[in-house]
Amino acid sequence: MPVKTGNISLSTRGNTDIIDITKELERLVAESGLKSGTVTVFCPSSTSGLTTVEYEPGAVSDLKRMFEEMIPSKREYAHNATWDDGNGHSHMRASLLGPALTIPFVEGTITLGTWQQVIYVDFDIRPRQRELVVQILGE
Amino acid sequence: MPVKTGNISLSTRGNTDIIDITKELERLVAESGLKSGTVTVFCPSSTSGLTTVEYEPGAVSDLKRMFEEMIPSKREYAHNATWDDGNGHSHMRASLLGPALTIPFVEGTITLGTWQQVIYVDFDIRPRQRELVVQILGE
Amino acid sequence: MPVKTGNISLSTRGNTDIIDITKELERLVAESGLKSGTVTVFCPSSTSGLTTVEYEPGAVSDLKRMFEEMIPSKREYAHNATWDDGNGHSHMRASLLGPALTIPFVEGTITLGTWQQVIYVDFDIRPRQRELVVQILGE
Repeated sequence: MPVKTGNISLSTRGNTDIIDITKELERLVAESGLKSGTVTVFCPSSTSGLTTVEYEPGAVSDLKRMFEEMIPSKREYAHNATWDDGNGHSHMRASLLGPALTIPFVEGTITLGTWQQVIYVDFDIRPRQRELVVQILGE
Repeated sequence: MPVKTGNISLSTRGNTDIIDITKELERLVAESGLKSGTVTVFCPSSTSGLTTVEYEPGAVSDLKRMFEEMIPSKREYAHNATWDDGNGHSHMRASLLGPALTIPFVEGTITLGTWQQVIYVDFDIRPRQRELVVQILGE
Repeated sequence: MPVKTGNISLSTRGNTDIIDITKELERLVAESGLKSGTVTVFCPSSTSGLTTVEYEPGAVSDLKRMFEEMIPSKREYAHNATWDDGNGHSHMRASLLGPALTIPFVEGTITLGTWQQVIYVDFDIRPRQRELVVQILGE
């Protein structure tokens, strides 16, 4: 069973920017030539994370509000007191959401639901150039 | 190394219905004939998620309360304003919990703790028929 | 494609003890002799979890505060009412954070970011001896 490694490059706006990466993932799985297995997406970053959502403007704005209410940007963080970089909340949101997602694929297609998209969420406080790692295992 | 694909079919009650799927997972791993590897469970849905818990009535009710307090069902959501389907909170809870779980198995047995069960949580607001994808990789 | 199973043994202090396990993971991947694949870490426990963070004292203390505020230790839980073991909040935090993490490795090295470490968080209310399962799949 081979392993195929890919990458997804993204220019984000930061500040809980929520980006649909479904098409890039589907393309990488198709290009792998593998029929069945798992695709693992990983953020090599401590200020961003991955999950799925119904990617429509309402749910996307609800998600931004949820993170702002749960882990507010405007309060003191010990991380900020030490490093003065103002992204303490970004680290907390990223740790809570998690940096990795593993999804099965069958007959060359990711097994997402009809109304389900894979999203990368950049919690950092400024635009960033990001490169996600995509590891495909299968046969 | 082969890949074995299975499914778990569930009739849920919705409304943060918490269902123990441990036995079904153990059965699928046993039926795969594989000795060592990982099993990935995935919800092809944007209103449900997966995790583990000590599956006893107290912890199960605490978990329902936790989601209701963190992400209340009775408030406005932009998703609801657009689609009028009333399950904005279901989408938020699902994105936070995450749609996937990957667990090792060794000597044909999932490496769960003694008091640890795998749960599927259906956050949607009505009973649903669900089919989870189970992808087993190993040798 | 072979599967290599390892373990990480930890003596924790409990009470949201946050432990950096990056070096142990890197060592296990190196010892596997595999070049490319995924490493899955799993907590066989319902009172602990895994994620990544920038492991510096500020962010670590922010993370402890975040869990205490989101899921307070000092309130009633149905789990405690039944079992009288006082760790109802530990179970909730563990279910929310999740018991598993899967990370790609390429050229024998885990694809973590520069400021990103893998952490094990023990939410239980007393010191524990823990053994994590590490499953490495690759080629």
